[in-house]
Amino acid sequence: MAVSSIEIPVRFAETDAMGIVHHSNYVIWFEAGRVALMADAGIPYTDIAAGGNHFAVTSLQVDYRLPAHFGETVRLMTTVGALRSRQIVFHYVLAGQDGRALATGSTEHMCVDLANRTARIPAPVAAVLQAFAER
Amino acid sequence: MAVSSIEIPVRFAETDAMGIVHHSNYVIWFEAGRVALMADAGIPYTDIAAGGNHFAVTSLQVDYRLPAHFGETVRLMTTVGALRSRQIVFHYVLAGQDGRALATGSTEHMCVDLANRTARIPAPVAAVLQAFAER
Amino acid sequence: MAVSSIEIPVRFAETDAMGIVHHSNYVIWFEAGRVALMADAGIPYTDIAAGGNHFAVTSLQVDYRLPAHFGETVRLMTTVGALRSRQIVFHYVLAGQDGRALATGSTEHMCVDLANRTARIPAPVAAVLQAFAER
Amino acid sequence: MAVSSIEIPVRFAETDAMGIVHHSNYVIWFEAGRVALMADAGIPYTDIAAGGNHFAVTSLQVDYRLPAHFGETVRLMTTVGALRSRQIVFHYVLAGQDGRALATGSTEHMCVDLANRTARIPAPVAAVLQAFAER
Repeated sequence: MAVSSIEIPVRFAETDAMGIVHHSNYVIWFEAGRVALMADAGIPYTDIAAGGNHFAVTSLQVDYRLPAHFGETVRLMTTVGALRSRQIVFHYVLAGQDGRALATGSTEHMCVDLANRTARIPAPVAAVLQAFAER
Repeated sequence: MAVSSIEIPVRFAETDAMGIVHHSNYVIWFEAGRVALMADAGIPYTDIAAGGNHFAVTSLQVDYRLPAHFGETVRLMTTVGALRSRQIVFHYVLAGQDGRALATGSTEHMCVDLANRTARIPAPVAAVLQAFAER
Repeated sequence: MAVSSIEIPVRFAETDAMGIVHHSNYVIWFEAGRVALMADAGIPYTDIAAGGNHFAVTSLQVDYRLPAHFGETVRLMTTVGALRSRQIVFHYVLAGQDGRALATGSTEHMCVDLANRTARIPAPVAAVLQAFAER
Repeated sequence: MAVSSIEIPVRFAETDAMGIVHHSNYVIWFEAGRVALMADAGIPYTDIAAGGNHFAVTSLQVDYRLPAHFGETVRLMTTVGALRSRQIVFHYVLAGQDGRALATGSTEHMCVDLANRTARIPAPVAAVLQAFAER
């Protein structure tokens, strides 16, 4: 099972008055993770969008274990989960600079067309993502 | 079961290139919802924080049903779920201007002290939240 | 000179590790201010956008005087500045709950069409904004 | 005059319904730019903060020339401007993936202590930033 990994330098703007990264930023980081996975797999998300499709988020789940801090560079590892004709799941593990897991999560997506109607994941996209998942 | 309700005018900055509200903003709105609930219940979050405690988010779950758009004012309804000695759960229902449910979700929180150690929810805070939940 | 005024409850997510509102949020609040001004003037921004135009930001200036804090509701007052055939300027004063000025600023905008080309501000829009400015 | 340069992959969450990067994100990128400059100069911002000081933003100015898009990696170049006993100015040039200038800007900062009172920039910090500026 192939893993896509990116490093994210924590921005000061991502912190909150508790002195740690605000939990909403993990959702934005997860998106950066799946965008990087698609690029790694060989099908940039801009190509999918240019083809008239989007992976609309239908469900989100995050477990927060340890806080992330400004000044560290965190690592996000993203994998492909269930892949169906119109749906795809991504899984995420976020690690701190010391390697400890800070959070885990997953997102479920429905493939939609430009009119926001449910659509089949284009065959070439599905093939590339399936191949990445099995790599 | 008492419900705290707030209206949120969608900001243009909250939209994304799909022309709808970016899904990460729901997480920020949920936070505004539970802050409003605590104020409605009679125990502003600033008082809890001034007392040396925070409700750190340990888990987050969102189901997205319909998109929210710039130009509408959405309504967020927040309720208290499970309330334990050190943990509290909030539930959320987000409705569009036309009344349809856009999303549902929940967050789990651990009470922590200023050193980020697990702590009991202060008795007066727990009492007020329990009373609100049973109202 | 008419002033459009809105109240903004500070969100916890808008704070940073200095314990105050992060300065980038003022830029988002200013946008909410000019959107409210257009609605007050009688020409909602969604109508302008539906007509195929946008007021692209070409310049931004903010002076920060005092910090804003979570737990307070700030007040933003927005006015129309220079209004030319293709450009418009907005001015902003942000006040804290105690009435003291927290920040002042201005934004300059170029009217663009859907292809992002410079365009004349539609006559009815210009008339409404001019009338508001002179009210 | 030394320049600190960082690459920033545009996040989808940073776009808005105009299909381009929302202008508020440039403010967050500028912050990442000056944080990188301080690290390049040899005085990480976390060290300055750990020493009890912050560079509070007192003024911000941005000129927007061309839009940035999701799918490109932009380059931000940051330099030190005026450096006084209690104040520092940073200048920014943001370039698109094709090398064209997307935006320029500057921020002015006042050195403050933990109680948010004006303070002298610590001598070692000032020396390191001066040396970087003259490099």
